[in-house]
Order: sequence, then C-alpha cells, then structure tokens
Amino acid sequence: MKANILFSGGKDSSLCSLLLESFFDIKLITCTFGLLETSQMSRNIAEILGFSHEVIELNKNILIQACKIIIQDGFPNNAINYIHRQALLEVISKKKKKNYLIADGLRRDDKVPKFELSEIKSLENKYCINYISPLIGYGRSTIDQLVEKYLEIEENESKIMKKCDYESELRESLNIDLGEKETDKLFPSSHMQSRVISRKNI
Amino acid sequence: MKANILFSGGKDSSLCSLLLESFFDIKLITCTFGLLETSQMSRNIAEILGFSHEVIELNKNILIQACKIIIQDGFPNNAINYIHRQALLEVISKKKKKNYLIADGLRRDDKVPKFELSEIKSLENKYCINYISPLIGYGRSTIDQLVEKYLEIEENESKIMKKCDYESELRESLNIDLGEKETDKLFPSSHMQSRVISRKNI
Repeated sequence: MKANILFSGGKDSSLCSLLLESFFDIKLITCTFGLLETSQMSRNIAEILGFSHEVIELNKNILIQACKIIIQDGFPNNAINYIHRQALLEVISKKKKKNYLIADGLRRDDKVPKFELSEIKSLENKYCINYISPLIGYGRSTIDQLVEKYLEIEENESKIMKKCDYESELRESLNIDLGEKETDKLFPSSHMQSRVISRKNI
Repeated sequence: MKANILFSGGKDSSLCSLLLESFFDIKLITCTFGLLETSQMSRNIAEILGFSHEVIELNKNILIQACKIIIQDGFPNNAINYIHRQALLEVISKKKKKNYLIADGLRRDDKVPKFELSEIKSLENKYCINYISPLIGYGRSTIDQLVEKYLEIEENESKIMKKCDYESELRESLNIDLGEKETDKLFPSSHMQSRVISRKNI
C-alpha cells in the first residue's frame, strides 16, 4: 500500500512518516505556492529521512483567499484551516486515483489545522480516497518523547524559522502586501516551529 | 518507552500493538470481570502476537452499574463507554506510575467506546499519565487493509463470538439476570466481532 503524506519538513509530518514506514510505501508531498524556497528545502529533508518526495504547486488563488480570511479575522486559524483543506483537495484532484491514501501530521492537541469527522467522511466518500492522520491519537508529551528519540530537530519562532508549511508562505505573502509590522499583528506573538535535521536510532 | 495496551484479542487492539511495536516496549493488558474464560484466551492471542500480557480483574461493581445503565437506556452504548472509562481508571490506579503510557484500539469510525478530547486531557492531567489511541486517525477502509495484510482473523456475530471484551461479559451478566431473549433486545440485531488467529507478513 502507498501512503502519500503531506510534508512540511517539520517534526510532526516527519514523525508521521516514521510511524507509517513499516506498513506503507511512503511518498512525501510538499505543497507550495512557489513564494519561498521550500521545494529544495523539503526535498533535502525528505532525502535525510529516506523517502521519495514530490512538490505540488498549489493554485495561488488559495493563498489570496487565505490572506483575505486572516485579514478579516485578525488571527490565522481559519486561514490555515482553509489552506490545509484546499491543499488536500488539490493533491487529491491532481492524482485522481481510486483508493488513493493521503495522510497528514495533524495531532490531537493541534488547534489548527483541524478536521471534523463529518468533513473527513465527506472527503473520503466524495473522492473515493482514504485519509489518515496517524498522530491524531497522540498527545503532546508522547509525541515529544518519540521525536526526542527518533529525530534531531531545530526549533525556533515561526516568524524566523522558514519551513515548507502554509504559515511561512502566508506570512511572506502578507509581508509583501502589508509589511512585516502589520503582518506580525495577525499572528500569535510566540509560536514555535520545528525543522528536521536528521534521523536518530534508525 | 513502555506502552500498555488494553487488549481484547480482537483485530483493533491487535493492530494497535503491531503499529506500536517498532517504537515501544509493548505490554498487553486484558481487563476482565472473571465471568468468562477470557484470561486464557487473551493470553493465547497475546502469545501468538509475541507480546507480554497481563490480566487485570476489574471491580464487579463496574459490571453491575453497566447492567443498570444498559437496562435503563435500552441500548448498550453508554454502558460500554462506562466500562471502558472505568477499566482505564482501574488500570491506571493499580499501576500508580508517573508518565505511565496507556493505549487502546479505539478507532475513528467507532461509535463506542468514544472519548472527548476534554476527557482525555482531564485523565492525563489528573493521573500524570499519557493516553494514546493509535488507530483513532484511521478510517475503516485503511484499517481493514492493514488487518488483511498483517493478521489472520475470524469474525462472527458478537452474540456468538466469545472474546475478551466488555460486551461479552456484559452480555453474559445480563443473560444470567434477564435470560437470553431479553438480553438480545438490548443489543443491535447484528454486530460483528473479530478474534485474531495469527500474524501474517511479519
């Protein structure tokens, strides 16, 4: 069985791929709007992890719409949820394979992105795919212990840490439109992000 | 890290143990009220899977209370939810170990048992333990494919299939009190259960 994992190069999507590798043929998929140098970065981390990798360029209208949402809301939750859903749909519609298995690194204690069960079932039924979130049954403490044992990571504030996730490109797009000072007001003052450096205890 | 998995000998808790075995030192725990011959059966299946195993006898008052609930409700959901919560609490209180990791085989599409996130967090904080449900991010179709690949199972109606789960002993207790005909009315007319026979593709 093949599992296609939405991959940001951070600890969650990387741990997700490690948890699945004994049971699935893993392909990591990084979605990007082409605004930052995320393609090469994600490719490098996928290579370090030892998995095949693909970059999918998302329609820029998704980013434009996400910027509208965050500006209207004044906080990023709904905008990031929106991008995540649209990214899933774009990947699924580009693949058009029945029983396509798509996975992500969402976890139990995440505030965003977040899916309701009804949305997941609707997605699966509509597109005849399977969607899994292997970390959704794990709490922060257990995940931290697994990450500590199996991954070497660097962590920093999401404002500084450039990685291959939606927030980095959302920030970049807003920086261009509004400037850094106004953009900063739309995000929590502190939010740590991670990037994988290497595997441990393979 | 040690993972203590609530184990019924069915496909879900067995698959849960397979998903975790590369990352944790597995111990399977079967909870019983001592009403059926579940100890030996669960021990045999644990041995087939290749994991260490312990039987914990639950306080019979839990079963008495569950019988009251199902009779009052006329359907088994709340009674089974109640037993699952009490079983978790009994195991945790008997172990009294900080950072004790307890896991179960609950999955995304299960109707019961089911936990709210707030309940899980309350349990973790109150007892300083970690609770995980590795299958909760998986849908039925993906689980069926994994079971097909890695486990040989037998399936039958829950009324017939004796296994080491709460429903078997709940039914047995009600059979004794109410007779089989009245007991049958309290459960769905058709509900398949599984029991593991062997591992495949190790």
